[in-house]
Amino acid sequence: MSAPGRFSVVQSKSERAKSGAAKPRCSIALDAMGGDHGPQVVVPAALRYLADNPHVDLILVGDETRLASHLGDAPRERLRIRHATQEVGMDESPSKALRGKKDSSMRVAIDLVKDGEAQACVSAGNTGALMATARFVLKTLPHIDRPAICTAVPSLHGHTHMLDLGANVDCTAEHLFQFAVMGSELVSAVDGIERPKVALLNIGQEEIKGNEQVKQAHEWLARSNLNYVGYVEGNGIYLDDLDVVVSDGFVGNVALKSSEGVAKFIGQSLSAQFKRNLLTRLAGLIALPILKKFRRDMDPRRYNGASLLGLRGIVVKSHGGADEVAFENAIYIAEKEIHANIPQRIGDQVGRHLDTEQYRESA
Amino acid sequence: MSAPGRFSVVQSKSERAKSGAAKPRCSIALDAMGGDHGPQVVVPAALRYLADNPHVDLILVGDETRLASHLGDAPRERLRIRHATQEVGMDESPSKALRGKKDSSMRVAIDLVKDGEAQACVSAGNTGALMATARFVLKTLPHIDRPAICTAVPSLHGHTHMLDLGANVDCTAEHLFQFAVMGSELVSAVDGIERPKVALLNIGQEEIKGNEQVKQAHEWLARSNLNYVGYVEGNGIYLDDLDVVVSDGFVGNVALKSSEGVAKFIGQSLSAQFKRNLLTRLAGLIALPILKKFRRDMDPRRYNGASLLGLRGIVVKSHGGADEVAFENAIYIAEKEIHANIPQRIGDQVGRHLDTEQYRESA
Repeated sequence: MSAPGRFSVVQSKSERAKSGAAKPRCSIALDAMGGDHGPQVVVPAALRYLADNPHVDLILVGDETRLASHLGDAPRERLRIRHATQEVGMDESPSKALRGKKDSSMRVAIDLVKDGEAQACVSAGNTGALMATARFVLKTLPHIDRPAICTAVPSLHGHTHMLDLGANVDCTAEHLFQFAVMGSELVSAVDGIERPKVALLNIGQEEIKGNEQVKQAHEWLARSNLNYVGYVEGNGIYLDDLDVVVSDGFVGNVALKSSEGVAKFIGQSLSAQFKRNLLTRLAGLIALPILKKFRRDMDPRRYNGASLLGLRGIVVKSHGGADEVAFENAIYIAEKEIHANIPQRIGDQVGRHLDTEQYRESA
Repeated sequence: MSAPGRFSVVQSKSERAKSGAAKPRCSIALDAMGGDHGPQVVVPAALRYLADNPHVDLILVGDETRLASHLGDAPRERLRIRHATQEVGMDESPSKALRGKKDSSMRVAIDLVKDGEAQACVSAGNTGALMATARFVLKTLPHIDRPAICTAVPSLHGHTHMLDLGANVDCTAEHLFQFAVMGSELVSAVDGIERPKVALLNIGQEEIKGNEQVKQAHEWLARSNLNYVGYVEGNGIYLDDLDVVVSDGFVGNVALKSSEGVAKFIGQSLSAQFKRNLLTRLAGLIALPILKKFRRDMDPRRYNGASLLGLRGIVVKSHGGADEVAFENAIYIAEKEIHANIPQRIGDQVGRHLDTEQYRESA
């Protein structure tokens, strides 16, 4: 979902293939049983990704027999299966998954990251379980109290990274401050922006608005070394020239999902207009190439893949309902974070930002 | 912003004029100095509204001389000017406006409602000052701790009322419960729906998700007499068949403004597609009538006007940047609430819902 030529999160297949040739080898573990569709989506996405990215190895984690049947006689070069006997259900409670499913495809994929067999893992499984398991297995980085979920959304100026998107429903000012640092480091590394513009999501741009946590985080951020530009309201996520928008997980999740809802509603209403009668259908045919290009640019699948930031390893969450194209994009994000060395980078930089006199005095 | 024929919040001019004939007389006070444009927008909006609604009297509150000059030689039938010497600034703090501006156009308009000279007032002035002043002058209804801001947004199923939209940044479960009751009563009265479907905004539909306030409100609502349908995620506001969506003011405000941002972003991106080259411009010309109709249906001005619910009087907040059409719509919403007798109705019904054994025991 962005204007053509502005992408940096998401590349076309040919762009990826082209740039991929120069990249160092890496290995990514895929939770092949996760999501609404499991291997039906993950296996073909993996095969497509391998074909386009000759420097990448993939490990499919899940039920060996089912995975083999989905693979059929497809070439298995740079592709391994790692058997896991259990699956985490989409509605399973995080604590139950963590205690009772030590051989789930999700857990084993994360274990592979911890053991260094893979440098990242991707799962379309349930977010709560993924976050709890990743946190338990990989642990958080020094200075980071809680990991956050971060994703890019399209905007008039290209795209904006938002965090947290649902991992933390109640956040203190300290948490918001840490999210700002992590988001800034991520964007700096993956988008190559030296000092990303960071804003705090609020219900007004005046100093007097907002709750106590937001006001306190605002004060610290204003005195920090980050390129903090102040408060932003919901519309600013899509209209303002920003790189990172910080909020607690409840607010961020609602903002993201409301946006998805509106986009879908507008798309359906526009389609309905063109289907009203013979004349409008005819006009629709003529406008079709433009509408198709518009739809392609706005395709949310091109933004699939949210990063679990603040962990000692790379974990990317794919949308549960992701199709092959969307899941491929999540793998691409994982790969990008490997090359940018995100956990190490956040670990190195976060201390520098959090160690400012002002923050220490007040926190 | 809705499919044709589904409106009930917003009517066309001719619909209004038609149905207006049978309505009882009423009087509405307008804060003529409020908003980004003041009398420049409010005066022409008032004149248009009077022309279409012969049963309505309007009182323009503000600087007599300036208002007279804006009126020129326009007919003043059913139109009065009420002089007020002060104005509340758009960035003024609520407490300062309340203490220092006792003769502001905003304050006098609300005073007219209290004194019974007007049955409702409309202001495009600053939300915080309007809420604080309205609350101080009119007082809240019995059982209601805090007023909430409520507006309709378009959805696939017609429209959905959302509250709170920013009056209360931190809410307890009791507040959320009261908002649900107020929203349900409003929709029942103005849309004529016997048992409106009420949902609670959350970050997941599972029972385990959400913060403590939301979970507690969910329990009470599930045991209440309301037609409570459970949790809804952000996308459900626009895609699900719901009448009322309840949240705290921070979350509701961010949801609404993010939605506005996405809608604007999509509109601009679509325009850009049609402007790419000569061919796309030609296709755009052919599709123009359809795109125009689409734009008209999606016009946010048709949804302008938010109700301050829970007060002993009717106060409608217009968007600060509203133009004539939008401001007219806010007057229309005020009129609708007068005929539906909203404060009386909420006052009567709210006790019945809040007086359930379950709520009293736990609250």
